[in-house]
Amino acid sequence: MVIEKDDKLILLTNDDGLYAAGLKTLLEVMEEFGKVVMVSTMESQSGMSQALTVKTPLRVKLLEETDKRRIYACNGTPTDSIKLAVNQLLDRTPDFVVSGINHGANASVSVLYSGTMAAALEGCLYGICSVGFSLNSFSPTADFSVCKEYIRIVMKKLLSESLPAGICLNVNIPAVEADKIKGIKICRQSKGNWKEEFEKRKDPMGKTYYWLTGSFVNHEPDAQDTDEWALANNYVSVMPVSVDMTAYWYMDKLKSRFDK
Amino acid sequence: MVIEKDDKLILLTNDDGLYAAGLKTLLEVMEEFGKVVMVSTMESQSGMSQALTVKTPLRVKLLEETDKRRIYACNGTPTDSIKLAVNQLLDRTPDFVVSGINHGANASVSVLYSGTMAAALEGCLYGICSVGFSLNSFSPTADFSVCKEYIRIVMKKLLSESLPAGICLNVNIPAVEADKIKGIKICRQSKGNWKEEFEKRKDPMGKTYYWLTGSFVNHEPDAQDTDEWALANNYVSVMPVSVDMTAYWYMDKLKSRFDK
Repeated sequence: MVIEKDDKLILLTNDDGLYAAGLKTLLEVMEEFGKVVMVSTMESQSGMSQALTVKTPLRVKLLEETDKRRIYACNGTPTDSIKLAVNQLLDRTPDFVVSGINHGANASVSVLYSGTMAAALEGCLYGICSVGFSLNSFSPTADFSVCKEYIRIVMKKLLSESLPAGICLNVNIPAVEADKIKGIKICRQSKGNWKEEFEKRKDPMGKTYYWLTGSFVNHEPDAQDTDEWALANNYVSVMPVSVDMTAYWYMDKLKSRFDK
Repeated sequence: MVIEKDDKLILLTNDDGLYAAGLKTLLEVMEEFGKVVMVSTMESQSGMSQALTVKTPLRVKLLEETDKRRIYACNGTPTDSIKLAVNQLLDRTPDFVVSGINHGANASVSVLYSGTMAAALEGCLYGICSVGFSLNSFSPTADFSVCKEYIRIVMKKLLSESLPAGICLNVNIPAVEADKIKGIKICRQSKGNWKEEFEKRKDPMGKTYYWLTGSFVNHEPDAQDTDEWALANNYVSVMPVSVDMTAYWYMDKLKSRFDK
């Protein structure tokens, strides 16, 4: 693949692994917008957050190259994949980092745990226009094609004007038929958390182990400006995510507490 | 260990593993404030961010119990440790989640990658008053005792008044002699990122692998309200960290872009 000066270069990754249906769909749409370098995790890396591989070596394998795409698999996390691509695999900084389409929503606090969104945050830290896409379905037969129209809309907005420094987008798409989706809503992150999160089991040797499970609790199900509300009401949610986690509104109060 | 109704219950973890000097120091100080349940990661989990273990079982081992402490080791991440403790190991919700003392600073964007800070964020998501402590030194002989005085100051503030919902603290302590530390500064997260992050090597079979390395680039070294500036100038930095990553200041502009 030759990347010309005028080509848009799109770096693509996900956290569901190389054979994920959502990744395939996203690759198809991205090829409409430019040359694509995909660096996928070899296996599922769901819930890996912005984890870095620091204790073991990373391996990368070039799997496919055509005029329009170059596809690598990486044995690390989504964040490793972006770092490796930007630092080692690409000759120039990409115009976009695009991650997903995740199998399952990344609304509310899931943004903190999500490998998909971590890849977008990582791109954002490099100063690259970055976005993560997720479909609100864990079904093995989920239909990702409903996402295409909204991915195109978001990408066209980003092509016409990039995002400010330090901000990437978290886009969640309802898993309903296309004609049921009411449109796009710009949202804030819902307040919520996960509860009752482990199954306690015995292994064949009679020893106890725990397996993570659990259910999400929405603390503000009626708040119409949140991503969870948007998804529950068949809107595509678009949340601007900040890499700056400072709680600015509490700075002055905290200062006064420590001045005492 | 019997936990009386009036006892303060402190849940302690870290990301440097069970034998880390910083964890030992933090345990000593926490015993001054209440009964301590420590759930440490068995091995170092640095850079694991808020990663969850979803594909493999978790194991927990009770290592020690006295009148004042109960110590477990967990084979998962710092976030797993907090989740397991709150959901399975503790009879009641702890009054504090305390994480660290990390071997190395967690200022600027390191808060996104840090297992130490992820544990504090996890406590915060459960509505528990949570704080992560880090020492600005990677030296194997780092002296953590300098941290004690400042940990006590922070804990006394939190005992007299908790933090608002959705906020935890990120405390970074300079690795200098006690009389060189100028005091505590309430800070925002510095803008910065990591650069040149991989060493490309050949394994004994002649195959290429990559190992993560790199150096931090501070984008605003002169900004006196940032955590990096505070550390560089021998102040203890205290940053209020929000679990809500919404970039509120960009919401209206983003809405107007999608309304067009």
